[in-house]
Amino acid sequence: MEQKLTRLKNKLNAIYDLKHTAALLEWDQQVNMPANGNEERGDQIGTISELAHNMFVSEDIGQLLSELQTESSNLDPRSDDASLIKVTQRLYDQETKIPVELLKNLAQLTSVAYPYWEKAKESNQFSVFQPYLEKIIALTRELAQCFQPYDHIYDPLLNFYEPGMKTADVKQIFDELRPLQVDLIHDIAHHAPIDDSFLRQYFEPEKQWQFGLEVAEAFGIDWKRSRQDKSAHPFTTTFGQNDVRFTTKVLDRHMTSSLFSTMHESGHALYELGFNPAFKRTPLSDASSLAVHESQSRLWENLIGRSRAFWHHFYPKLMDLFPDQLHNIDVETFYRAINKVEPSLIRTEADEATYNLHVMLRLELEMELMEDKLAVKDLPSAWNARMQEYLGVTPSDDTRGVLQDVHWSAGLIGYFPTYALGNLISVQLWEKMRVDLHTLDDKISQGDFHDILQWLRVNVHQHGAKFEPQELVQQITGSKIDAKPYIRYLKTKYEEIYR
Amino acid sequence: MEQKLTRLKNKLNAIYDLKHTAALLEWDQQVNMPANGNEERGDQIGTISELAHNMFVSEDIGQLLSELQTESSNLDPRSDDASLIKVTQRLYDQETKIPVELLKNLAQLTSVAYPYWEKAKESNQFSVFQPYLEKIIALTRELAQCFQPYDHIYDPLLNFYEPGMKTADVKQIFDELRPLQVDLIHDIAHHAPIDDSFLRQYFEPEKQWQFGLEVAEAFGIDWKRSRQDKSAHPFTTTFGQNDVRFTTKVLDRHMTSSLFSTMHESGHALYELGFNPAFKRTPLSDASSLAVHESQSRLWENLIGRSRAFWHHFYPKLMDLFPDQLHNIDVETFYRAINKVEPSLIRTEADEATYNLHVMLRLELEMELMEDKLAVKDLPSAWNARMQEYLGVTPSDDTRGVLQDVHWSAGLIGYFPTYALGNLISVQLWEKMRVDLHTLDDKISQGDFHDILQWLRVNVHQHGAKFEPQELVQQITGSKIDAKPYIRYLKTKYEEIYR
Repeated sequence: MEQKLTRLKNKLNAIYDLKHTAALLEWDQQVNMPANGNEERGDQIGTISELAHNMFVSEDIGQLLSELQTESSNLDPRSDDASLIKVTQRLYDQETKIPVELLKNLAQLTSVAYPYWEKAKESNQFSVFQPYLEKIIALTRELAQCFQPYDHIYDPLLNFYEPGMKTADVKQIFDELRPLQVDLIHDIAHHAPIDDSFLRQYFEPEKQWQFGLEVAEAFGIDWKRSRQDKSAHPFTTTFGQNDVRFTTKVLDRHMTSSLFSTMHESGHALYELGFNPAFKRTPLSDASSLAVHESQSRLWENLIGRSRAFWHHFYPKLMDLFPDQLHNIDVETFYRAINKVEPSLIRTEADEATYNLHVMLRLELEMELMEDKLAVKDLPSAWNARMQEYLGVTPSDDTRGVLQDVHWSAGLIGYFPTYALGNLISVQLWEKMRVDLHTLDDKISQGDFHDILQWLRVNVHQHGAKFEPQELVQQITGSKIDAKPYIRYLKTKYEEIYR
Repeated sequence: MEQKLTRLKNKLNAIYDLKHTAALLEWDQQVNMPANGNEERGDQIGTISELAHNMFVSEDIGQLLSELQTESSNLDPRSDDASLIKVTQRLYDQETKIPVELLKNLAQLTSVAYPYWEKAKESNQFSVFQPYLEKIIALTRELAQCFQPYDHIYDPLLNFYEPGMKTADVKQIFDELRPLQVDLIHDIAHHAPIDDSFLRQYFEPEKQWQFGLEVAEAFGIDWKRSRQDKSAHPFTTTFGQNDVRFTTKVLDRHMTSSLFSTMHESGHALYELGFNPAFKRTPLSDASSLAVHESQSRLWENLIGRSRAFWHHFYPKLMDLFPDQLHNIDVETFYRAINKVEPSLIRTEADEATYNLHVMLRLELEMELMEDKLAVKDLPSAWNARMQEYLGVTPSDDTRGVLQDVHWSAGLIGYFPTYALGNLISVQLWEKMRVDLHTLDDKISQGDFHDILQWLRVNVHQHGAKFEPQELVQQITGSKIDAKPYIRYLKTKYEEIYR
């Protein structure tokens, strides 16, 4: 068995070299590439991805996996080797169960659909995108059907991002969460709105950039293993266990945008920088799931970055950097401003109290589309009705409504729920961390995040993709993914802010 | 035949995607990569290079090539398709005639040898590097012997960089050049030295950078297809026909270093940006040879960048940028300073009048090593004797003597002559260009390089690797690579400067 495992690992190493190389080609495209390099870059990404796919779905790996499945029956199922075999088998099934023809059609369709989505959004004409979305939904249904049997047609899509989770589980969690979150924002709506207009002053971009780097470094980012760059949309990407990079976008009149995106992406990066070195160049050197990934970004961005304790330490530094803009703003005013709740139309601009509602709406629409209960042509009115029901606002146009997100044009169906699940997990981890680390707030107030990062390294990061998200959360907190801690957190926080 | 050509091209396209991807991995390593990313980056470059090699030496390509060789006998040998077959066959022979074992041994040896060369150079102890260089020379002899029969054992090494050239040709050219260049610098030594101390003032790095970009843009660099970054050693690299990048190093007390390196690398980049679009993702989308490549960089750096006409236009701009440093330096003083001749120990710091002598010395030593006429242990004394003979200076230590260049530690034997051949070609092209473009100096004096770039595009760049260097030079200038124009150029230039 040892010899077969070594052979499997050697093959996986080369495949992960290719995957990380493709990630570099894409990062460079977003960050550095001269505009006209696009065409050949597309060829290169295509060639590398095809090679990685072909190497992975080779009969050789299939054979090794099936032999190892049998021979590894004596292994502790929680051992690294057993996990490697299990995770590799899951990925192998995902890549082999879908006919190459279908994958090609979907790739071609989404690349054709993207500019139509862009045009539809720009011109506020859903009908421009509608025929493409119809085809995307149809092909996505075909894609899901490759994974029969399932309890729900949405399950296989969800499982691309959340291994082992059922749509029914997610629905149950969200059904518990939704009414409480709707109530909360109704309550808040009865209080006087918070004035955060001072955040829209001009803040020198260079200083914003410097402050972001300082915060990332305080969180534990090591510049010998990471770097921050600028790109149109912030993201984090990984080229190896010691080379994880993230980006931000600096807006001169929206200081908090770049700052919280740096914290958010730092959280993602710290996760990727914390995988067990023994997992290098294998599928275990990856996140447990997208929701767990998002729990890391949200923990640093919201639970730490939007806390009083954090700003106790960092606000004086921010005032020193921006004396003209902030000299008559005290830390309490700043704290309330960055935690302002206001139901709005755009998911990516939503605050902590409303964000999950944007996500739930999308999940419900996706499920209905996949179940064939909702026709694509009826999507805009379904969207608007649900926005009114959950958030009390109705988009004046589809540009700021059903057309706002790029995801569906890229065939990313099943992805949205991971955002809300990540929020829930972040607070479950936070509650447990507060029990384990008694001096949490004191340390944050001193700008000292060492214990937090250590706790995350030990409990979350090091395991990489070894455990499925529900397993991991259960193992750390004693319960599966659960909405109650998040609700407790929101209530406590906002009752105090809007007292 | 059409079908086979298409199959060959498809395979070459994927291989060239891999080669350009490897180039990105290496560029990123020099320009952006966090320090600790090194280990996995090495794995990635290894994996991609091995894949590219394996795809190229496949029996499939061998078979296609041998069938195409026969079937293409009716093709015009100067047609694109005939050239593609010929050039691909040459590269195929190069990669298949060397046993994989030998390639591996050499790669392993040079990667082990590099730190010993570094250490030897740092500590001025040739003996630390000597045993490794002995092995490198032995393996390089083996490498050359794979290409028997040949007129001279150095021929195959030279041919890696200069297809079709014979060692005897190079020797003949250099034998003509050497005495004339030695005489020239003896003459100059009798004149009063030029004072260029003002160039060693502090010049703000940011302004140096800006000025370099302005010059590169004036030369014709299009930032939609290129970019300049910073790295420890300046270089140019290509990721596709519309993405060619170069780097520089800015020294705050050595303004001309960064400026002339930007001009030099711009020349390389303009060549790579000018290949026929029909050659995309094939071996024809490459330089004719390293010497032709170097002719392009030297033409922009020296024939244009160190000319009076150039500074007539650009010196007022430079004075505006650096008024404190240059207010009492007139353009003539500046022109003489950047053209100062001074025999020195270090090749990379050598001026136009002495540079080739550094190269010739290296070629002679390499030939003697390969012929087994010189033992590695006697290299330092042979080096020093020849430095005294050609340049009238003797290194006080091996650090600034035989250990100065990295090339031998990397197994790059056969590479040095391309630098001097490039200088010669640059002047041959220049003489022809002056005949074709009557208003050359006027245009340069106006900062207008459009006609020059056009001439190079048509006569040199577009052909890519289609013609061997001697063919190309013959076709443009009517004669093969020739030392006389270079000698004429040096004499005229320096007699006037040191009149």
